[in-house]
Parts: sequence; structure tokens; C-alpha cells
Amino acid sequence: MGNKAITSRDIDFAKWYTNVVQAAKLIDYSSVKGCMIYEPNGYAIWEKMQSVLDKKFKETGHQNVYLPIFIPESLFAKESELIAGFAPEGAWVTHGGESKLEERLLVRPTSETLFCDYYSKIVTSYRDLPKLYNQWANVVRWEKETRPFLRSREFLWQEGHTIHETAKEAEEETLRMLNIYKNFFEEYLAIPVIVGRKTEKEKFAGAEYTYTIESLTYNGVALQSGTSHYFGQKFAKAYDVKFKNRNNEDEYVYQTSWGVTTRMIGALIMTHSDDFGLVLPPKIAPRQVVIVPIGNDEKLLNICEDLLKKLNNAGITTFIDKTEKTPGFKFAEHEVNGIPVRIEFGLRDFENKKVTLARRDTRERIQVELDDNIVNAVQNLLDDIQVNLYNTAKKRRDEKTYECHTYEEVEKIMNTNPGFIKAMWCGLEECEIKMKDIKGTKSRCILENEKAIDDKCVVCGKRANKLVVWGIQY
Amino acid sequence: MGNKAITSRDIDFAKWYTNVVQAAKLIDYSSVKGCMIYEPNGYAIWEKMQSVLDKKFKETGHQNVYLPIFIPESLFAKESELIAGFAPEGAWVTHGGESKLEERLLVRPTSETLFCDYYSKIVTSYRDLPKLYNQWANVVRWEKETRPFLRSREFLWQEGHTIHETAKEAEEETLRMLNIYKNFFEEYLAIPVIVGRKTEKEKFAGAEYTYTIESLTYNGVALQSGTSHYFGQKFAKAYDVKFKNRNNEDEYVYQTSWGVTTRMIGALIMTHSDDFGLVLPPKIAPRQVVIVPIGNDEKLLNICEDLLKKLNNAGITTFIDKTEKTPGFKFAEHEVNGIPVRIEFGLRDFENKKVTLARRDTRERIQVELDDNIVNAVQNLLDDIQVNLYNTAKKRRDEKTYECHTYEEVEKIMNTNPGFIKAMWCGLEECEIKMKDIKGTKSRCILENEKAIDDKCVVCGKRANKLVVWGIQY
Repeated sequence: MGNKAITSRDIDFAKWYTNVVQAAKLIDYSSVKGCMIYEPNGYAIWEKMQSVLDKKFKETGHQNVYLPIFIPESLFAKESELIAGFAPEGAWVTHGGESKLEERLLVRPTSETLFCDYYSKIVTSYRDLPKLYNQWANVVRWEKETRPFLRSREFLWQEGHTIHETAKEAEEETLRMLNIYKNFFEEYLAIPVIVGRKTEKEKFAGAEYTYTIESLTYNGVALQSGTSHYFGQKFAKAYDVKFKNRNNEDEYVYQTSWGVTTRMIGALIMTHSDDFGLVLPPKIAPRQVVIVPIGNDEKLLNICEDLLKKLNNAGITTFIDKTEKTPGFKFAEHEVNGIPVRIEFGLRDFENKKVTLARRDTRERIQVELDDNIVNAVQNLLDDIQVNLYNTAKKRRDEKTYECHTYEEVEKIMNTNPGFIKAMWCGLEECEIKMKDIKGTKSRCILENEKAIDDKCVVCGKRANKLVVWGIQY
Repeated sequence: MGNKAITSRDIDFAKWYTNVVQAAKLIDYSSVKGCMIYEPNGYAIWEKMQSVLDKKFKETGHQNVYLPIFIPESLFAKESELIAGFAPEGAWVTHGGESKLEERLLVRPTSETLFCDYYSKIVTSYRDLPKLYNQWANVVRWEKETRPFLRSREFLWQEGHTIHETAKEAEEETLRMLNIYKNFFEEYLAIPVIVGRKTEKEKFAGAEYTYTIESLTYNGVALQSGTSHYFGQKFAKAYDVKFKNRNNEDEYVYQTSWGVTTRMIGALIMTHSDDFGLVLPPKIAPRQVVIVPIGNDEKLLNICEDLLKKLNNAGITTFIDKTEKTPGFKFAEHEVNGIPVRIEFGLRDFENKKVTLARRDTRERIQVELDDNIVNAVQNLLDDIQVNLYNTAKKRRDEKTYECHTYEEVEKIMNTNPGFIKAMWCGLEECEIKMKDIKGTKSRCILENEKAIDDKCVVCGKRANKLVVWGIQY
């Protein structure tokens, strides 16, 4: 039996998700339809994600910039696939102050347009390349159905936009950033991901190709979790981003873009959390340890303060809960908030020179000595939780990954215990579309580095050379 | 004689400012009228400001949140002064996707509305108070005339929004945050500020009162640099933010808001920079030291790498310029970019076991021993630059601060060598307005903690008990 405010995830996953998001105070609905309020607990996770990723971006030579939130319609329309892809979900500013604008402005759904426009002004020679820029920003897409973290009309993200002298360099960049995302998911979020290339139908509007990382939720639904695009010279031609190459000839730049969003918080929840609330991997938890003194005894509180200092000095983010609530109430609250480790310390513990460590993932409680080794004990427990969460998620993902050979097999699995389907595909869009009849199953990605299955197309039965992962779309 | 790309600040200050902004690659104009592109050099300064302030906000118990960028018109209109103040410069979204919205949405010019709306949902008891929230965000105000960093249609800022159980607590918060701003300006930006209360005419739309910090540019113009507002219960009443107080009675919360913006970068430039380009106080410079090896000799580069490591380990942000440009070109570039200290190291230095330190503020070059003391020598020089910039700015500000007794005196000063004018004021708005005839002179703030001048109102000559600082408005 879990937290009373939370429906069991095995009974109603959608309701469970909403309950967790609200019980852990991550997000609240706002009075603006389709837009969310990121509450302190939710925003702190985003800040932690930002700090880790920002460091990785800078270590690989990227610089942050900030471009305007508005894009003039005519500028946006220069790249035909882009406008076709994004216009249906655009939010348009038509009035500034008391007068109607001469040209309406699109609230950015993505910033390729303005980056290209900017690049066209600042790049003249191969000596100006590469430009490795990133932007942390809010973007707007007028979605019809919204869901906390997963889909909302405004969301937060980072968008990297780089230009290069050669196709090779740009393609390497596309893969480099994809790998940063993959490692971030596995090492920090403890979420295993499948990596591959999007089909023509599913790629980003205007890209030559799109790489993606795909995760699987507890209930077997696929989540596109991060994408990295190679544009070749498509945008460069549309926006006239040229440079003099080493032969002193005009050439269009080679371009990439890549992004991850606040959706990652949704992926975290749907992978690790349980009927008691949020579960956070220690490496991404804004607060890793809470100390709960049981009672107000001064000598007890002194020891807690001492422990707090030791843990924080060791780089373990710790706080003490000295509020006047009952211990039971505090335990439940820190549990629902997903604090990875809770340290309970009462008078009897004081006498026995022990403390109780409660780990959030398995909810086990263990007694350990309160001695010089306590910091190590806590650190080891945090490490253990991080590994355990990853292993649990990976085991489940692997168990829910099926190799299928017929359309009927796919139907059966998706209707009973859905997950990732590995199956061959002939490459025809009509076959891809036919898969949607099975509960909205879509191609997630083409596996390029995995040995193909010796089989025909799972839909039409004709010759096939693409090994595709399929999943029900969130 | 300064940098060739930069007009002298003594000849044409406005042009000088634009030249510095562009030569140091801080901002570029975008294709979106009135909106700017924050380039890597400019955005890095903002990131540094954010990191320092964010830490101070968190240390004083504030939490970050993120609220939607859109505000429904009817919700915004609930507070009559707010809508009157901001509607004339609102940007309005009228279409979402392919259809017209039922109600148009204001792109946030400030977020009191949504914070109040949110607070009204989450606060029920005095036990829920205070709420100490802050938001880092972009905001939009449809300005007619724009200027890099100082005024643009979209800008970046932080907005703190807090609610409290008592007026006393809220008023203390208003002052606490004002002081954080003041200290940040003086300690990090090396900019002396005058602190005081805005007049009724100049206060924030909807506030009970507004505190401000005001700085003075090199050419004697006043810059409002940060504000902290006390709202009392005005917004709480408009948005129905009530709580059960300790007597179990319904009461409206007491509220504050406070903010600083990317305008701070403009203040930095206009205070410290010179005809050679940007000058940055070391404590806010994203990169504090550049090492320029003169030549490619390997033993020389090894020593540079070694020095780089030592300085970075000591917490001094350092980089090496190994590009193929000439030393002279590099020197000029790092100078225009405002790197506080440049270390020059050539073969002769190698032989003499010395390096040359060039300080950006005074442009002096000194030789020091390349021994174990080198890190200290660099740190001391950085400290010295920080102090020198503050003292220079303070001396100039003080020299340009005048006590005036007659309207004619004010006229004469503002027309020859403008600055801050201290003069008594009777409190009538018509006198305040009459000051505008003198080159747009406005009240900057009322000095509350300074002894009044024994004098009459500088405009009407009637009894006056308010000591006011006046200045030409940027």
C-alpha cells in the first residue's frame, strides 16, 4: 500500500503520474491553459540538470548565447519544411503596445531561423568556423493536449546550434552531442536509452537526419528523450549562411542542432517513481539526504548539526528537518518528495551511537554506527541507490523489449504488455503508417549499429534491411 | 588615442557606448526590431551575475520557480494600476495554431499577476507563510526607443515575489533585497549606488512604495539599476490572496517584489569602460586572466600551461591564447574584451624568469618574478584592480554630485557638467514635473537616512521636508 494521495501505478498509470507530480509539488496547473507552473521542487531538478549539462557543453567548447523570443513570419517562412512543420502549432503576436504590428511575430518554437540569420551576419571565412553555440530558453508550441513535463504549450529547454566548415565535422558534432545526452541519461538520470536514427517521417522538419535517444516508461510506453539533428546545408542555403573556404570559394556552412527539455523530468518520474511518490537518482536529486532528529533534545540536535556539516563538506547535499511536524509525517513527506536517503536519529540511537539510514528506492532501513565512517556509509548508500535504480530500469526495459516477426505478434504484445518492439522494416512510409493502427505504435528509431534480423518487413512481408525499434508514442 | 573602432567617450558618449558594445562582441542587433542578440561575451557576464546573485538569494531562503510567459488579459486587468501602467507597452498573442484565441494573452512584462494567482491557490494558513520565490526569466515591454542592455523589447531579469504574514516581515524583506542589490553593485560590479525611495510618481505601478538603487554613468546620467517594491495588501486584495492568521481570521498577505536586469551590464560598461574598449571588474569578469605566449617555443608553452593550471587551481579563471594571430593583435583583442589581467610571456622573459602583467584598468605593464609567488602576485593585482575601479567610480560620482538650492543652479549644472543633484522638494508632483524641463531631469529617489538640507523646495521655494536626488534619466 502506497501513499494515500497516490493511485497505484499498476492500476491507473496516468492518474498515478498526475498524483505523483502534484504530491511531490513539482508542477501546478496555471490559469493559462496548457501552461504549467514549475514549483520549487520541480524547478530545482531542472536547475540540477542544467548545471550538469551546461558543464558538459562548455567542456566540449560550446558557448551560451541568447537570441530573441520573437521571429518575424517572413523570416521563419524562408525554410519551407520548417514553416510547414511548426506553423500549425505557432503562437502569434499581432499587437505591440496599442498598435497592430506590420508583420506578425512567431513566439519561438525553436530557433534555427534566428541562429541562421545571426550566423549569416557574423561568418565570412573558414577562420570564423566552427561556431558552437547553445541557448537555454523557453519555447512555445500550441499543443492541443498537454501533460505535466511531457507536453505543454510553453516548456524549457536547451537548444544547441552549431555551424562547421565541413560535413564531416558537423556530423561528428551531431554524434558527440547525442552521446553526451546518452551518457547523461545513463549516468545521472539512471535511465537506459536506445540510440538510433529517426525515419524520414519522424525526423525534425528541415533536417537531413535526426538522431534520438528513446527511453521506456514503467508501463512500457516510449518517450523521445533527446534529439540531435544534422542539417547539412539545407538551412544555410535557405538563410544564405556562406563562408570563403580554404580555396577562397563561397561555400555554405554545415549545421547541427540538438536539444533536451523539461520532459526529462517526466522521464525520470515515469522510470523510477513508485506508489509512495517521487524517487530520484542521487546524482540528480537537488537534495540528497535529509536528517530527521526525533525529539528536540539539544545534544541530539548538536550531533545532527555536526553530521550535517560533515556531509555537506563531503559534497553530499544535506538538510535537517527541524519543523514541528511529527516524525511519521516528516518521513512520509520526504518519501513523497523523493529524497534519496533519510537519516533518522533519536535518543535511543544517541545512546547506542547509531543512526538509521532509510533508502528511498527500496524503502529499506538499516542501522549503522555513528562513527568516523558515517560519511562513507552515506556516500556508499547513495552510490548503491544510483546503481540499483539504473539496473532496475534496465532490467525492466530489457524485459519489455521484444523481437517480433509478424504484425500479429506486435499487436498481441502491444495489447497485453507493451514495450519496445524490434522488427525489420522495408523502408516504405505506408508500412510505417500501418503500424499506427496498433495503439498508435510509431517507429522510434532505426538501429544502425546492431546486426539486422534475418527477416522480412514486419508489416508487408517484403524485403527489408532496416532494423527498427517501435513503441507506443507518449 | 584609443581603439580605432571606438569613438572617444569624451567626444560622443552615445556613439562610444555602441562602439564598445559591438567591438567587445557583447550584443548584436537582430532582425527582430527592438530585440537584441546576447553574444557569448555578453551572455557570459550575465551568467556570472546570475551565479553570484542566485547564491545570495538562496542563502537568504529563496527558492526558484518558473511561471508561464503568458498572462490572460482579464487576469492581468484585475489590478487597475498594473494594467494602466503596462498595457501601453504590452505585446499581445492573439492566435494559437490556426485559430484565434478566445482571450488574448499578454507576453509577461512582469509576473505579479501569475504569482498572486498561484499564491491564492496554495496558501491557506499562516503556517504556509512566508513564500520566498524568485524567477529568472525573459520579459517583454514594447519600448519605442531601444538601446543595447539599457532598454530593449525583450530583456532578461530576475523577479523575486514574496508573501508574508505581517507587514513588518514584508517591509524587512523589501529592504533586505535592496541591500543585497546594493552590496552586489558595490562589491562585485564596483559601482557605487545611491539608495532611496521613489516618489509616488516614479514608483512601480501598484506598489505601496518602491526602493531603488541608482548609479551614475561616466557622463553624469542617472541609471535606475535595481528596484525593490513593497505592495502591502494591494495585490492580495485584487487577486484574493488570503490566509487564516493566528487568530483564525481571514487576512490578506503582505507582499514584495524585487528585480534586476541585463541593464546591469549597461551600467558596468558606462561606469568603467574606456576608449580602448570594455573594462570589467575582476569579480564579475567571466575570464579574469589571459596568458599570451609570444612565440611557439615548446618550453615556453609548457610553462604557460603550468601557469594556467596553477591560476585555475587557485580559483582564478584563466585561459591561454594560442591562436595564430600576432601578439599585438591579441593584446588589442583582449583589451577591447576587457580581460582584467593579461600575462605576456616571451623567450626573453623565459631567460630572465619573469613575466609581464598588463592590467586592463590603468593599462600599466609590470614585470614580476616567475616564481612560487606568481599566483599571489596575480591575485593581488586582481584585487587591486577591483578596488581601483570602485574608487575611481566613486570619486567621479562624488565629484558629480551637487547640492543645489535654486532651480537656476540645477539648470546650470545639468547644462554643463551633469550628475546627481541633491535638493529639497516640497512633495508636489507639479514641482517634480517642472524639473523635467531641465533636459528631462527626474527625481531618482528620496533620501530617507540622510539629514535634510535646511532649505525650501528647489522648484517652488515653499516649505520642503524631502531631500531628493535628481538626475537626467537614461
